[in-house]
Amino acid sequence: MPSKPPEAVDDPHRSTPAPAAGEQFQGPELSLDPDDWYSFAASAHAALDDAIEFLRTARQRPVWQPVPQSVRAALNTSIPLQEQSLDEVYHEFKELILPYSTGNTHPRFFGWVHGAGSADGVVAEMLAAAMNANCGGRDHGAIYVERAVVDWCKQLFAMPDSASGLLVSGTSMANLIALAVARNARAEQSRANGLRDHPRQLVAYASSEIHQCVVKAMEILGLGAASLRRIATDGEFRIDLRALGERIAADRERGLEPFCVVGTAGTVNTGAVDDLEGLAALCAAEQLWFHVDGAFGALCVLSDALKAKVKGIERADSLAFDFHKWMHVPYDAGCILVRRGDLHRAAFSMRPPYLGAMPRGLAGAAEWPCDLGPELSRGFRALKVWFAIKRHGMRRFGELIAQNCSQARYLAELISHEPELELLAPVSLNIVCFRYRPPAGGDPALVGGALDLLNEELVQDLHESGVAAPSTTRLRGRLAIRVNITNHRSRRADFDLLVDAILSAGRRRAAPTTRAPGTSASA
Amino acid sequence: MPSKPPEAVDDPHRSTPAPAAGEQFQGPELSLDPDDWYSFAASAHAALDDAIEFLRTARQRPVWQPVPQSVRAALNTSIPLQEQSLDEVYHEFKELILPYSTGNTHPRFFGWVHGAGSADGVVAEMLAAAMNANCGGRDHGAIYVERAVVDWCKQLFAMPDSASGLLVSGTSMANLIALAVARNARAEQSRANGLRDHPRQLVAYASSEIHQCVVKAMEILGLGAASLRRIATDGEFRIDLRALGERIAADRERGLEPFCVVGTAGTVNTGAVDDLEGLAALCAAEQLWFHVDGAFGALCVLSDALKAKVKGIERADSLAFDFHKWMHVPYDAGCILVRRGDLHRAAFSMRPPYLGAMPRGLAGAAEWPCDLGPELSRGFRALKVWFAIKRHGMRRFGELIAQNCSQARYLAELISHEPELELLAPVSLNIVCFRYRPPAGGDPALVGGALDLLNEELVQDLHESGVAAPSTTRLRGRLAIRVNITNHRSRRADFDLLVDAILSAGRRRAAPTTRAPGTSASA
Repeated sequence: MPSKPPEAVDDPHRSTPAPAAGEQFQGPELSLDPDDWYSFAASAHAALDDAIEFLRTARQRPVWQPVPQSVRAALNTSIPLQEQSLDEVYHEFKELILPYSTGNTHPRFFGWVHGAGSADGVVAEMLAAAMNANCGGRDHGAIYVERAVVDWCKQLFAMPDSASGLLVSGTSMANLIALAVARNARAEQSRANGLRDHPRQLVAYASSEIHQCVVKAMEILGLGAASLRRIATDGEFRIDLRALGERIAADRERGLEPFCVVGTAGTVNTGAVDDLEGLAALCAAEQLWFHVDGAFGALCVLSDALKAKVKGIERADSLAFDFHKWMHVPYDAGCILVRRGDLHRAAFSMRPPYLGAMPRGLAGAAEWPCDLGPELSRGFRALKVWFAIKRHGMRRFGELIAQNCSQARYLAELISHEPELELLAPVSLNIVCFRYRPPAGGDPALVGGALDLLNEELVQDLHESGVAAPSTTRLRGRLAIRVNITNHRSRRADFDLLVDAILSAGRRRAAPTTRAPGTSASA
Repeated sequence: MPSKPPEAVDDPHRSTPAPAAGEQFQGPELSLDPDDWYSFAASAHAALDDAIEFLRTARQRPVWQPVPQSVRAALNTSIPLQEQSLDEVYHEFKELILPYSTGNTHPRFFGWVHGAGSADGVVAEMLAAAMNANCGGRDHGAIYVERAVVDWCKQLFAMPDSASGLLVSGTSMANLIALAVARNARAEQSRANGLRDHPRQLVAYASSEIHQCVVKAMEILGLGAASLRRIATDGEFRIDLRALGERIAADRERGLEPFCVVGTAGTVNTGAVDDLEGLAALCAAEQLWFHVDGAFGALCVLSDALKAKVKGIERADSLAFDFHKWMHVPYDAGCILVRRGDLHRAAFSMRPPYLGAMPRGLAGAAEWPCDLGPELSRGFRALKVWFAIKRHGMRRFGELIAQNCSQARYLAELISHEPELELLAPVSLNIVCFRYRPPAGGDPALVGGALDLLNEELVQDLHESGVAAPSTTRLRGRLAIRVNITNHRSRRADFDLLVDAILSAGRRRAAPTTRAPGTSASA
């Protein structure tokens, strides 16, 4: 509770109000502040207790449950015009929203590459909301916190002092910024004149396993999806360096202008890591920008056991990665680092008079983050990253990353002992792709599309059961159950349970009786 | 405090662990969860008390204070490797970060268009961090909350049901998305092939008062800054419709392809509102996309007294605005609405196999937000907007917006009574641009650049005094003190105090004695 009386708050600068300048400027003035701060504090503390309890009991809940039709209907109202008490609004939140979380706080959430969140992240976000900093620029504490976090990241990836960095919503945005810098570094007139005047078509390269956000970035930047050449991969889903070299040569021969190669540290499908050293050498030889999409895999540098896998990452011209994945900072928080800070600024810096810097005062500070990206309004996401790194220390994150990769190998071993389960890709880091297949003597029709469908249904069954939430993908034309482990709450026993649940669901689905009319197996 | 014992938490699905599959998979497993939830809860509640106290006593602090060199040095450490207790980290936050806020929670923060934050926003952000939703897609509660908020906004701006919307970090990002949709709607092949293949140069139009983020969006999209024609304004800083029509005709004659006009509802310099009805009619006649940058001004629709100023906004093809400005939601939160939802999806929708939707389970839900923008990782910013709208009701925001505009007129009236102050632009909404000028008989050298410098110094003096924080801009070649009022805590008495402080500082600066060596007036 507030330690001071909640009534009038003295303002040391406040003098006696001047007489009103006219009748139209009289009468009471409103604010959004609580009338009664004690009552507000009581409600806020009750909500905090619930938030803590939500995290503490993560394991007790189903991983996921559908949002009932009644809840959807209750949320779908006309626009609220009148105020409600905080307790009323909070009650609705607790009934209609809190029970239907994504599930990624649960130890058996294995779908997509989501971090699991953390308790200290709740504290950091609460404090950031109170400070309400706009980190687009100017001279205030939040700017120095972001600078500290960026400097730590530069140290982590052996970037020089002259490198630049920016916290962003995630790797989608970080990749967009990196490709914009790479594009503008090549086509220097493009800021002013756009791409039409550039003499040749700019083309970039990545493996066929590249994340869709890189394709989207190419589209947004006006380069076009087709200008991202998707190069074949080897048996471990890593870019084929020879095929890459040949394609670059062929494109040059056709009069196109290669400008960038995107390597991936941890592909979304299988967790494969491209040969980053090989890519760095190729880019140096070909004078191409070397960008690394290291959304989750980049942080393997934190683990002695894993850092060899991402060797070469320290040679990237730009690097994108996330804090909300393997560092479990609450959504959202990612980072872009650019080796040549001058090129980064050249792509985004723009200061009209209303954003002019001054030698002193709030408009001071040498570098404003808005000079490094598309956003002028930017929340204080650096605080939760600062809290996470200070609270747990970088070593702990390295240990947890290694733990998740060990759990992936554990799961792969469990799978290898089950004849009804089939591994569909090598386990490189933390992602295990496999499928259920009926035992010998089972339904001979369960092959091809029918087997894909069975596995898809099985994953949906698992979600609806609340036991575990893997996702799916397609690998070499086959549907895979995809278990991604970016979860500090997962224990080996959770994978035992997952395998049991998948075998049960698979057997139920594969048995002819379950495919009677009225079940959703035919959906 | 948690109501249940904080020890082991039962998992209804947890069975006896299977025997370990091999020796390498034994030993304890780590997590980021607190060892002692009671102790964590105690620290978190203490931090919440401080957060509440920070807001409750906003008026007691200086608006701004510089970050001391010692604090900058303390933040500038090598990367933390070892863990620290939450209390230790929190203590550092309280010493090094909290005192150095941007200042926009203070009633006399008038610099730039920043919202002032709110107490209920702190609760909402804390809860969002606990849920840790990734709102890129899938089927969970947060998705329906965002949909509700977007639907409310569609109702507010009379958009049809088929319109689409997305919460974003702010209007910078919203404008970028809008222009991408407009660009792709015109150049249908640009997603695949980029802009080089488009037969003619695409050009867009806005007034010379347009915000820099629209220029940046043109650059990012590969269209180029020069392809945004900046049209002259009238005496009230509104786009000159006749000049606009002439420029469009001239561009067409030159073989260029006009595709979009950006109108502004509330310019950053003076708060001017373009003639949106006139622009809508012109765009209809010319078959151009009509985008409105309504960062703060769009929400004038909430006030009966002000909504006539933005008439025509309901005819926009796309509309960008912020919640963190005049709705005081904690940073960051803005919105993009697009009348033709199909064109919005056509510009951004992309679903590779690992993001495939399913009929049931967590991968269900008809529309994923990632289909409407560049980001796949997206925090749950809809919750704080939902909380703000439910808690206060839309009417209250309309009243507060009208109150800020009334305060701007009040300040203008105070200025008009002071011969040493000169208004430099009409007061359209909530922004007052003026300057100090020495009284008759003062230093005759204080004109032109010297007078600009005096006013710039004066604003820095004000920041450093902690009394008030206006910003500056340039209007028709003259430096203006710019007072922007998006602040629910400001009172008329704060403007009396501001005028007194500016007069004192101006007189001190204008007096010949102050410009002795050693003062910063010559900086």
